[in-house]
Amino acid sequence: MSTTMIKTRQTEKEINGVRTQVICTEFSNYIFIVLTQYGKIGTLVSVTPESKSSDVSMPMFTTKVLMGKDEPLTHVCAKNLATCVSQEAGNRPVLLGLALKDSSIEAVKLMRDLIKSCQVW
Amino acid sequence: MSTTMIKTRQTEKEINGVRTQVICTEFSNYIFIVLTQYGKIGTLVSVTPESKSSDVSMPMFTTKVLMGKDEPLTHVCAKNLATCVSQEAGNRPVLLGLALKDSSIEAVKLMRDLIKSCQVW
Repeated sequence: MSTTMIKTRQTEKEINGVRTQVICTEFSNYIFIVLTQYGKIGTLVSVTPESKSSDVSMPMFTTKVLMGKDEPLTHVCAKNLATCVSQEAGNRPVLLGLALKDSSIEAVKLMRDLIKSCQVW
Repeated sequence: MSTTMIKTRQTEKEINGVRTQVICTEFSNYIFIVLTQYGKIGTLVSVTPESKSSDVSMPMFTTKVLMGKDEPLTHVCAKNLATCVSQEAGNRPVLLGLALKDSSIEAVKLMRDLIKSCQVW
């Protein structure tokens, strides 16, 4: 039996003075990403592309909080962080754990780059 | 800033002729485990010890399907696989992804050993 490892990568960086860890793992049906400034898995959100989007180049995404506090800001952050990943991963849904101290637009942009540096898709 | 890696381990084994992969990742508030015979993340179940159990040596566990099909067998398997981990990890809850072809008692026992071989807690 040949061994195929589950692809996983992680890194950490200080973002606006806050230590930020990211770990990305590839599954056949999901990209799993945890972005944490607390060491916790945080709020778990699924980000799923709509199967029937009228415009292929601009797919719609559905966000759903599976675990943790369901706040509007969480949905915005999740979409912002995961849309790009999903598109690059052949429209695979993303399962995202978010434990953020700083959810400013500026921080989220830097986090997006941090996620990209751990590309497993 | 000192770098602290998120602890993650994985392995694979043939169980009753089926290739079985496991990946365990440690977060401060959860142990995250995916046990897959399809490469998928599968059904996502949280296994949480009851905070107020009358008998400390025999804690009760609550299982909740967060994503995927909610079937009685999933709850049984999840409890069977995660109870031990949670206890060993200082009563931390376990987040478990299950994508199993074979959920026989015999297979689940072997899967429990496989999880133990990837101890991150």
